[in-house]
Amino acid sequence: MEIMQVERALVCSRRIPGLESVSLRVLRGARGTRAVAVDTLGARPGNWVFTISGSAARHAVGKSILTDLSIGGIIDHWETDAARPDPRS
Amino acid sequence: MEIMQVERALVCSRRIPGLESVSLRVLRGARGTRAVAVDTLGARPGNWVFTISGSAARHAVGKSILTDLSIGGIIDHWETDAARPDPRS
Amino acid sequence: MEIMQVERALVCSRRIPGLESVSLRVLRGARGTRAVAVDTLGARPGNWVFTISGSAARHAVGKSILTDLSIGGIIDHWETDAARPDPRS
Amino acid sequence: MEIMQVERALVCSRRIPGLESVSLRVLRGARGTRAVAVDTLGARPGNWVFTISGSAARHAVGKSILTDLSIGGIIDHWETDAARPDPRS
Amino acid sequence: MEIMQVERALVCSRRIPGLESVSLRVLRGARGTRAVAVDTLGARPGNWVFTISGSAARHAVGKSILTDLSIGGIIDHWETDAARPDPRS
Repeated sequence: MEIMQVERALVCSRRIPGLESVSLRVLRGARGTRAVAVDTLGARPGNWVFTISGSAARHAVGKSILTDLSIGGIIDHWETDAARPDPRS
Repeated sequence: MEIMQVERALVCSRRIPGLESVSLRVLRGARGTRAVAVDTLGARPGNWVFTISGSAARHAVGKSILTDLSIGGIIDHWETDAARPDPRS
Repeated sequence: MEIMQVERALVCSRRIPGLESVSLRVLRGARGTRAVAVDTLGARPGNWVFTISGSAARHAVGKSILTDLSIGGIIDHWETDAARPDPRS
Repeated sequence: MEIMQVERALVCSRRIPGLESVSLRVLRGARGTRAVAVDTLGARPGNWVFTISGSAARHAVGKSILTDLSIGGIIDHWETDAARPDPRS
Repeated sequence: MEIMQVERALVCSRRIPGLESVSLRVLRGARGTRAVAVDTLGARPGNWVFTISGSAARHAVGKSILTDLSIGGIIDHWETDAARPDPRS
């Protein structure tokens, strides 16, 4: 499962039937890669979350939801490597 | 789920039985990688879309369609990092 | 689904029971990565193909065939970025 | 299956229903990538482990646990390339 | 399916129930990445093999074995790019 940061909601009116009524979030990974995930927890921009991929992603938000990535949890506190004090200094 | 841009239709007359009658699109990802996806939404070259992979990709377009990547939605408006104004300038 | 070029057949006499009688092809991706795929279409060295991965790969060539990658189609015509004329020149 | 090192526990009070009561560990891969895995073996920070991904990850810790990555074993002894003496010296 | 070289056996006494009695091999990919696979063919260090991932990996070695990577075959003869004579020289 990956740790990513919520950037914003994805506005997308034309979707396949299995995704009409779900919230889609744009997430950014540690190396700048972006992904889209289904959110059932109400995550907000700036939140750090972990994502679940594959078939587990569907089970996580209801099997009829046709996603391959879902938000699994909102992390209480997360520091990126850049923000973390260097233990050697 | 990944955000990619539609480049063109893929012309491919010799296919496995599970894919004969579906529309195949060549998509380009943020880092220049290319992929082929099944399209049931009528996406056109230049459209930004998000894709669904794995077993969810098959459920998204009909379980008998043997794909590992399908277009899940056509994004209303998408700006790449390059095109987005730098908030610090 | 990925676009790759067929390099050659893979000669491999010791295989698990689920793969004894299938044709295995060595494929090369756009970035030089190699993969092995089951081929049921008779693809030849130099052909450009698209591959199907995951559980769909098994359905594509017969569920008892234990593969995670199968050739889904032989592309009629494909130009790599290097070979394609630069529209700006 | 990947070889990774346990960094620390992940504190995450808001989770989807399928993950409420499980231990989550932050793991670090050989190339510095991070991942979150479900731990049923009691792995501690510094332990080298191998992880299982995909549907097998769920079977490994109980099918109702909605994970795509689980710790499959704690490795008795592991040396990274950097720590291993160079056989040519 | 990926082509990798067997490095050594993985010694790992604390494992999840689904993997107690299987042989685990450390494999090295073309780009130096390492992975752990279940081996039912008796592959030895130095052998070049191809691996099967995902749900097919479980079917390949017996569905109760909770792996996401299994050795699918031992390749008769394999030359890496570095070892292969350059056709242009």
